[in-house]
Amino acid sequence: MADTINVGLVGYKFMGKAHSNGYRQVAHFFPDVKLRPVLHTLCGRDAEAVRAAADQFGWAEVETDWRRLVANPAIGLVDISTPGDSHAPIAIAAAANGKHIFCEKPLANTLEEARQMIAAAQSAGVVGMVNFNYRRVPAVQLAKRLIEDGRLGTIYHWRAVYLQDWIMDPNFPLVWRLQKDQAGSGTLGDLGAHIVDLARMLVGEITTITGLTETFIKQRPVLEGTTGGLGAAGGQQMGEVTVDDAALFLARFASGAVGTFEVTRFAKGRTNFNSFEINGSKGSLRFNLERMNELEVLLEDEQTDVAGFRTVLVSNGSVHPYWNAWWPAGHIIGWEHTFTHTIYDLLNGVAEGVSPAATFEDGLRCQAVLDAVERSAGSKQWVEPEY
Amino acid sequence: MADTINVGLVGYKFMGKAHSNGYRQVAHFFPDVKLRPVLHTLCGRDAEAVRAAADQFGWAEVETDWRRLVANPAIGLVDISTPGDSHAPIAIAAAANGKHIFCEKPLANTLEEARQMIAAAQSAGVVGMVNFNYRRVPAVQLAKRLIEDGRLGTIYHWRAVYLQDWIMDPNFPLVWRLQKDQAGSGTLGDLGAHIVDLARMLVGEITTITGLTETFIKQRPVLEGTTGGLGAAGGQQMGEVTVDDAALFLARFASGAVGTFEVTRFAKGRTNFNSFEINGSKGSLRFNLERMNELEVLLEDEQTDVAGFRTVLVSNGSVHPYWNAWWPAGHIIGWEHTFTHTIYDLLNGVAEGVSPAATFEDGLRCQAVLDAVERSAGSKQWVEPEY
Amino acid sequence: MADTINVGLVGYKFMGKAHSNGYRQVAHFFPDVKLRPVLHTLCGRDAEAVRAAADQFGWAEVETDWRRLVANPAIGLVDISTPGDSHAPIAIAAAANGKHIFCEKPLANTLEEARQMIAAAQSAGVVGMVNFNYRRVPAVQLAKRLIEDGRLGTIYHWRAVYLQDWIMDPNFPLVWRLQKDQAGSGTLGDLGAHIVDLARMLVGEITTITGLTETFIKQRPVLEGTTGGLGAAGGQQMGEVTVDDAALFLARFASGAVGTFEVTRFAKGRTNFNSFEINGSKGSLRFNLERMNELEVLLEDEQTDVAGFRTVLVSNGSVHPYWNAWWPAGHIIGWEHTFTHTIYDLLNGVAEGVSPAATFEDGLRCQAVLDAVERSAGSKQWVEPEY
Amino acid sequence: MADTINVGLVGYKFMGKAHSNGYRQVAHFFPDVKLRPVLHTLCGRDAEAVRAAADQFGWAEVETDWRRLVANPAIGLVDISTPGDSHAPIAIAAAANGKHIFCEKPLANTLEEARQMIAAAQSAGVVGMVNFNYRRVPAVQLAKRLIEDGRLGTIYHWRAVYLQDWIMDPNFPLVWRLQKDQAGSGTLGDLGAHIVDLARMLVGEITTITGLTETFIKQRPVLEGTTGGLGAAGGQQMGEVTVDDAALFLARFASGAVGTFEVTRFAKGRTNFNSFEINGSKGSLRFNLERMNELEVLLEDEQTDVAGFRTVLVSNGSVHPYWNAWWPAGHIIGWEHTFTHTIYDLLNGVAEGVSPAATFEDGLRCQAVLDAVERSAGSKQWVEPEY
Repeated sequence: MADTINVGLVGYKFMGKAHSNGYRQVAHFFPDVKLRPVLHTLCGRDAEAVRAAADQFGWAEVETDWRRLVANPAIGLVDISTPGDSHAPIAIAAAANGKHIFCEKPLANTLEEARQMIAAAQSAGVVGMVNFNYRRVPAVQLAKRLIEDGRLGTIYHWRAVYLQDWIMDPNFPLVWRLQKDQAGSGTLGDLGAHIVDLARMLVGEITTITGLTETFIKQRPVLEGTTGGLGAAGGQQMGEVTVDDAALFLARFASGAVGTFEVTRFAKGRTNFNSFEINGSKGSLRFNLERMNELEVLLEDEQTDVAGFRTVLVSNGSVHPYWNAWWPAGHIIGWEHTFTHTIYDLLNGVAEGVSPAATFEDGLRCQAVLDAVERSAGSKQWVEPEY
Repeated sequence: MADTINVGLVGYKFMGKAHSNGYRQVAHFFPDVKLRPVLHTLCGRDAEAVRAAADQFGWAEVETDWRRLVANPAIGLVDISTPGDSHAPIAIAAAANGKHIFCEKPLANTLEEARQMIAAAQSAGVVGMVNFNYRRVPAVQLAKRLIEDGRLGTIYHWRAVYLQDWIMDPNFPLVWRLQKDQAGSGTLGDLGAHIVDLARMLVGEITTITGLTETFIKQRPVLEGTTGGLGAAGGQQMGEVTVDDAALFLARFASGAVGTFEVTRFAKGRTNFNSFEINGSKGSLRFNLERMNELEVLLEDEQTDVAGFRTVLVSNGSVHPYWNAWWPAGHIIGWEHTFTHTIYDLLNGVAEGVSPAATFEDGLRCQAVLDAVERSAGSKQWVEPEY
Repeated sequence: MADTINVGLVGYKFMGKAHSNGYRQVAHFFPDVKLRPVLHTLCGRDAEAVRAAADQFGWAEVETDWRRLVANPAIGLVDISTPGDSHAPIAIAAAANGKHIFCEKPLANTLEEARQMIAAAQSAGVVGMVNFNYRRVPAVQLAKRLIEDGRLGTIYHWRAVYLQDWIMDPNFPLVWRLQKDQAGSGTLGDLGAHIVDLARMLVGEITTITGLTETFIKQRPVLEGTTGGLGAAGGQQMGEVTVDDAALFLARFASGAVGTFEVTRFAKGRTNFNSFEINGSKGSLRFNLERMNELEVLLEDEQTDVAGFRTVLVSNGSVHPYWNAWWPAGHIIGWEHTFTHTIYDLLNGVAEGVSPAATFEDGLRCQAVLDAVERSAGSKQWVEPEY
Repeated sequence: MADTINVGLVGYKFMGKAHSNGYRQVAHFFPDVKLRPVLHTLCGRDAEAVRAAADQFGWAEVETDWRRLVANPAIGLVDISTPGDSHAPIAIAAAANGKHIFCEKPLANTLEEARQMIAAAQSAGVVGMVNFNYRRVPAVQLAKRLIEDGRLGTIYHWRAVYLQDWIMDPNFPLVWRLQKDQAGSGTLGDLGAHIVDLARMLVGEITTITGLTETFIKQRPVLEGTTGGLGAAGGQQMGEVTVDDAALFLARFASGAVGTFEVTRFAKGRTNFNSFEINGSKGSLRFNLERMNELEVLLEDEQTDVAGFRTVLVSNGSVHPYWNAWWPAGHIIGWEHTFTHTIYDLLNGVAEGVSPAATFEDGLRCQAVLDAVERSAGSKQWVEPEY
């Protein structure tokens, strides 16, 4: 049986819960994983809350200061599931202590921080991985393989949106995700990071960008206390929303393809609609996270009388990525399984001393694109990402 | 330029309007039609109403007695678009006068009438065709071709429904379609006839049946006057509904396939949902009239990683039936176009002296299946259609 | 923290894996569960294989004879995840030993066995539950609530299919599911049981039935060895398929509704298509397991200009059943989560001494319907289930 | 019965066929039209071809020089269905002769021409209308009404694409639509004009734009002869494609909404995918021309447990625009019906001396947006349309 590695997880709310599940489940479904994770220590500032979370999520120990966690010699892997402003300090300290690092996206709130994180991981020789979990939806991996195998031909178009609607109520309070100092940006870092990362993985590097950002609701009730997770109760006092509610941009890729990107939290009725379409000279693809077990595929074919997009139920263990681990065809998986897939590859990477994609470098490049969008929105110019 | 034929149409409401359009349009889109129809005489009992309809629909003359119409030597083709109880007398008289006949479905209200109509047409040597217009939806013709070419392999399953909801209001009045003496039956003859005809065309003859019929609303307001078409205003007095609101049956086909059939006017939200699915050893098909320009097609394929139903937009003139006549691919056609296709084939048939499918014999065989459903519903036995 | 209960699970393949996951996960997502399960003993005849499965799935002990397992005083709950022919002996012995029982569907291969199981559980005073896991898809629970709250009005129609295609290859071997002595029946018990159970839960008791069964491929290669799960490699010798490949039936419900049911393993391209539609006087519902996080809902409404089926993404913790336990809206769950929900209710039932639905009585009634289908297919008569 | 007006139509290919049908059909379905069109003269340069077209489409006379047609005193309405470079001269001459004008989109190839056309029509006091036929898809009119009635609240987002794939083959020849001197632009004028017009109608004026254009296939075989319509056979010699294959742009609206627009002829598998989504504070809409009889509608609602997009089949004569003229609900209409609707409103406008939308002014404003896209693509700046 494989060796084990002790994990220390910083953050215990939405992402903490999802990461915990990934560590708990990975070896039960992927028994060939090369390192088996031990849920060693869960870290958060509120001692009582973190203890309750540890009990629920299956962690042995708790810790209230991430500095002690990253210094704990028992821990081999540090998982950073906190708001973006703390990613850099935690990661740099973890690297300094020789810990491997698994970091939530976006990698950092600034390019400078991201570069420091890369340098820290490199000089320490530790594995670093960013949790762009949508890379490991089986349907997305199938898309990647179809492209890499040339089955779509030359790619002409990328067309992606990530649409949500959870803050459309003007009375929704000023949570951390709406404050620039903590979140770095609004939809750009939260949703835009995902679709930029997918675009880079599937179509390649982005060379130039024009875009805009918009904040539809400029003042919101200041938060009193928290109910955790994404929801929260607001009070009487109003505060300024310092991040974007929506961001739209056009891009040219190094390959010659062109792309559209749009992210918003103001698309009524769109709960978690992360969707892309790719058009190539020989075929097209469509994906939508709300139906994440499906990929729509159009391939050039001699049977022109039946040309059309196929709705592929991506759940066939004999041909579809990661599916051997799960159930017979047609028994679909859910959102959190993408974390299990990611952690599986992470642990194999740690065992082999290789950082799996999305690497910190991928994280930086994604961040550079988002930074370019913000600069373009400000300057009203086409700008190039500063890789 | 082709010769012309004078048409006499009996009936000027819903079907009369649709048939008129077919005659008007056919030569404009199918200039190769072998006989060009002239809209000669429109017939209905209400002189004023039929005159107004003739003006709107483009008919030269009007007539209030079908007996005169079928005796008019100027007329070459008689079109019967009346309720079922008058099909047989009109058709038999038309045949006796040597007229070609185009008859609305169902062919007749009884098997005996249908047999008399066949005999009359045969002995007169006239062309007879039943208007099963859904045969000539391009997507349905594509389905037929895929099956005939063996691309679905051996057919195992037929699964069809025709669902509507236009009489669910208990206050909807007792229109002629709800009275057995005029309509013959309820959903069976109106909707069931369509899906039985499609089943016969696509999968072959039905050998044995078990079924049930149901009338959910047994009393309705007696009709006062009429607003024409399908809608109508009811009064205070109640009368008995003498036809079925729904019919469900199972069937075995001569080919070894098995089938389910369901028709109802009590499927809330289903406006005109005429849908079938066919499963064969090598592929499957799905069709739905509300999206009549599409056919969903699953074909066995070596590319098992992208197996899935294709949504085929059946609108490509270079490969799809009847489409050369219309528009560039993707510019969809509507429901009434099926009448234009049918009339195109009818007129070519008349020119050649051949009765195109659905022939009167097809009409009889369809009727025999519906008759078997009614007998089975009564006897609670499996019964065989009396072809 | 809640008390614990030791579980003994018999069966370690497809269902064993799914049940194991449910026990492991339940308290992590439903921390209020009233009894926390301990994965105590896994049982199977092949010592080596069961040990490997136990290691993978997280069971402490293994056992190769279910008789020892049901006699083990440490165990409080016996989970029967074996083929149908062994359900009765294991359950009766478990009850005799005072164990609570969780049994895979169908409850038994014969009505007589089912009745004995009910008697055994009753006389022992133990909790008994059948794993009709599709009851606890959140979308299905939402359907149930909409009906119970009268939002669909009077139910007129039930229309259900469960379509698969995994044995269409004539060379697929004669696995246990294709042998009557082990499986009891083919699609009827495997797939039909699910849709009958859903029909009973949503529309009520079935009073009378007419149906047919069909075996399309009558001889298959005899199995040599096994690769486990649903797939298997066949050899040269041929053996008789003794179960149905497809079953179709019509039913009348006590409520006055009528229904169609169809199950098959010969619907090319339909991987795991468990789907139903319900039409009531005020609304309609559609569900499809391959998109199990969605429910299509049509409700009568004063806004007739926007009448139409809504595609409801059933993932909102504030209003949708079981969703509080999982993720923010739009982050979908998978097939195995239905087992977690079922086990949550099971454990609460055990804690309270109440058998949750589906009870053994539900299992018997479902079995009686399937039995009626088989009798009707034989006698070619309408028959009544023998409840 | 209404007075008549003699129509002279210039152009007899794809658009000529569609316009002819509209004139032929309008009074048969809209008997209340205030002027009944007479198909008087069809005009084209090839005498033989135009004669054949006139025979097929139902025109009495033919003409080979549009100058004679616009001077013909018998003609009251001139319909311009030619490539964009001839719109201005024909329209200006027609106005000078006091003819009412119906002009294909885009109004002109340059803003200057468009302004001259407006001036000519104004000084002549004639009715001028641009054929943006997609305005009169019933589903689009329903969208308009929902927005105007405030049922979507404040509009935040417009998201539109018009995707085709008919010139993806590099051997597809250099037809007039690919030559700037005749077509004015590529996808911008052909497809972009449609979605800009819809955006203006539904969301209001566009104030500023950033965009790009791209030509993927820069050289194509020079055309030898023509097969008419959209298809054509190419020869050996290569020529330069002087228009865009794709155009992408972002826009801000005067209302505060933001929008994305994309048009391309390189979206493999997208036949005629003209689609938009609108998100407002209280609801959202989705439309797709390939399913033009449907509108997807999300409206805020107290029934939060069934929140979701409704698929509305826009075919109900009692509540949906233009539907009274056609068939019972659920009997869908096709693409060419939008021309019939447009011509109905045009003829009523002529009867009343009022230019219906899209007016020439609308045509100019649309053109100004497209011009801004081209300027932005050149300058790489945000630019404002020059209204």
